[in-house]
Amino acid sequence: MKVAERHYRTIWPAADGRSVEIIDQRWLPHEFRVVPLTTMADVATAIRDMWVRGAPLIGVTAAYGVAIAMLEDSSDAGLDRAWDVLHETRPTAINLRWALDDMRRLLAPLPAEQRAEAAFARAARIADEDVELNRNIGRHGLDIIRKIAASKQPGEPVRILTHCNAGWLATVDYGTATSPIYLATEAGIPVHVYVDETRPRNQGAQLTAWEMVGQGVPHTLLVDNAGGHLMQHGMVDMVIVGTDRTTRNGDVCNKIGTYLKALAAHDNGVPFYVALPSPTIDWTVGDGVAEIPIEERSGDEVSLVWGRAADGTVVQVRISPDGTNAANPAFDVTPARLVTGLITERGIAEASETGLRGLFPAS
Amino acid sequence: MKVAERHYRTIWPAADGRSVEIIDQRWLPHEFRVVPLTTMADVATAIRDMWVRGAPLIGVTAAYGVAIAMLEDSSDAGLDRAWDVLHETRPTAINLRWALDDMRRLLAPLPAEQRAEAAFARAARIADEDVELNRNIGRHGLDIIRKIAASKQPGEPVRILTHCNAGWLATVDYGTATSPIYLATEAGIPVHVYVDETRPRNQGAQLTAWEMVGQGVPHTLLVDNAGGHLMQHGMVDMVIVGTDRTTRNGDVCNKIGTYLKALAAHDNGVPFYVALPSPTIDWTVGDGVAEIPIEERSGDEVSLVWGRAADGTVVQVRISPDGTNAANPAFDVTPARLVTGLITERGIAEASETGLRGLFPAS
Repeated sequence: MKVAERHYRTIWPAADGRSVEIIDQRWLPHEFRVVPLTTMADVATAIRDMWVRGAPLIGVTAAYGVAIAMLEDSSDAGLDRAWDVLHETRPTAINLRWALDDMRRLLAPLPAEQRAEAAFARAARIADEDVELNRNIGRHGLDIIRKIAASKQPGEPVRILTHCNAGWLATVDYGTATSPIYLATEAGIPVHVYVDETRPRNQGAQLTAWEMVGQGVPHTLLVDNAGGHLMQHGMVDMVIVGTDRTTRNGDVCNKIGTYLKALAAHDNGVPFYVALPSPTIDWTVGDGVAEIPIEERSGDEVSLVWGRAADGTVVQVRISPDGTNAANPAFDVTPARLVTGLITERGIAEASETGLRGLFPAS
Repeated sequence: MKVAERHYRTIWPAADGRSVEIIDQRWLPHEFRVVPLTTMADVATAIRDMWVRGAPLIGVTAAYGVAIAMLEDSSDAGLDRAWDVLHETRPTAINLRWALDDMRRLLAPLPAEQRAEAAFARAARIADEDVELNRNIGRHGLDIIRKIAASKQPGEPVRILTHCNAGWLATVDYGTATSPIYLATEAGIPVHVYVDETRPRNQGAQLTAWEMVGQGVPHTLLVDNAGGHLMQHGMVDMVIVGTDRTTRNGDVCNKIGTYLKALAAHDNGVPFYVALPSPTIDWTVGDGVAEIPIEERSGDEVSLVWGRAADGTVVQVRISPDGTNAANPAFDVTPARLVTGLITERGIAEASETGLRGLFPAS
């Protein structure tokens, strides 16, 4: 999508054909930095230290990491080492492992001297597939936005609330929850996006808002506390969020606080949609609340807030007293009963096993 | 309550009998500063610039402001001027106006030379009445905590979630929502308090958490997003919040985000209580959602976060990009249907006109 009027993806092959460039997301929204990753060690650092984040983007970055590793050592041992080093960076990331396995499956049968070229081609294809998948989610979500727009006065915007960043920065391009929004603006449908700041890490304030600025989408930042009040007063037409993992029953695990917005949407008759790329469906799990273990992260993410000081430096400040500890569950589960629909790349499913199997019968 | 093992109120007469001392709350939780207010102008600044905040405390501070003003000019003109200057500091604060009217009603009939002494005595009585009212709320809330404690294993804490700061810092002592908690700890009942940080101004992280540290109450800071997840997993036994204004129907206007916690409590069968000093009941309003206008505050409160930098200075940092505006509704309304009970100084009422009239028939 656009940054200062120029089109970017989050990752792309460099001109030398031997490395990639990425947006170093740690400095957003305060600084826009593009950095090259020229060695496998660079790629490992970029994933581990969250220069890139978001499940789809992590997968693609790892795929390119394997390709760069093949330039360094394309032997079987080199391939195994690339898998190990890159897997170690975010060992619980499903897409990372999926991409590494996919690359190894492709490369292992090839002669060592053909591996690098094949790996770069495959990584590029994984990136393109992510973009295509997101565009398809966007197309189906656009149908919903179009219907809401049709019920309004001409020119009146469709007001969409979103939580966290399921935006293009979390993917290669378009994003998942944001894809319908971007396609709507491309189609000339006026939208207004309410962006939850999404404590504790403020991905909404730092990333989603920054995406909207770049794309020129009218938007308003909100504290996470405010969405219920807006819905009570008819100021939100629909909610779209992403998901880290959705169970076969349609229970949606997503960034902490999603459940509270789903409750408010349900209480006020506001449609609540989840943008769901099918690799995110966990067919092995039924009841999300009971079965999905929730990652408990450091309380420092709550107590310490990153931001730009008056002198322009990006610093951390402590908002709580010494002697106070914080709990920091990173995700919550929204029960399927609160979800209006799941927007997948194949169409919109009811949040239920029947709904999901209807679109993905072979899974 | 206690600060570093010593008992404090938020305001008290100074040893000279001609001035008061307050806790300057702007620096909490990072610095504990006690400052004297020796002139009416000092008092006006302290209220206007929020060295003190919280409806009950503002009222008491204004009453002392009138007393100090009577030392400066106890004529009828001086009394009128004190009313005007102090009223101007926070013109929409109900308790401020109530205290000023009360003082003028008492002082106007008195000879000028008796006014200062009478005013100091009256201000002290208003302060004591606030403490007594809060203790009575605490006693009734304690009954609820006691019942929950009785249903648990001995020693297992009653886990209470609270939002914002309806603590002793907002009153003269004890607070409203915190009063049952403090009385429970005094009674030896183990409690654990989950403190919502309460964006955008972080009164939970900055004030409620600091109160808990001072009082030695076990507590955990949470982002506002987390409470729903905790309730889903049976980790919260009850919610207690304060209120800025409750309608005769029992609809509760309180800090933004309260409604979302009430929804989560309702969805998970967690009792949701509101500590309600009767002066906060607005008998003129029925439907809170439809009728209560919600103050929209500056978006800078969302975009700029106060905290303590690594070098110890208290600074503000920007968390959002240039080009992003924020909306900042300060309060929301929790419909009575989501409220388990209203804890007043006269007992616990159902959140309804019948419930409130039962305890306050003459209102």
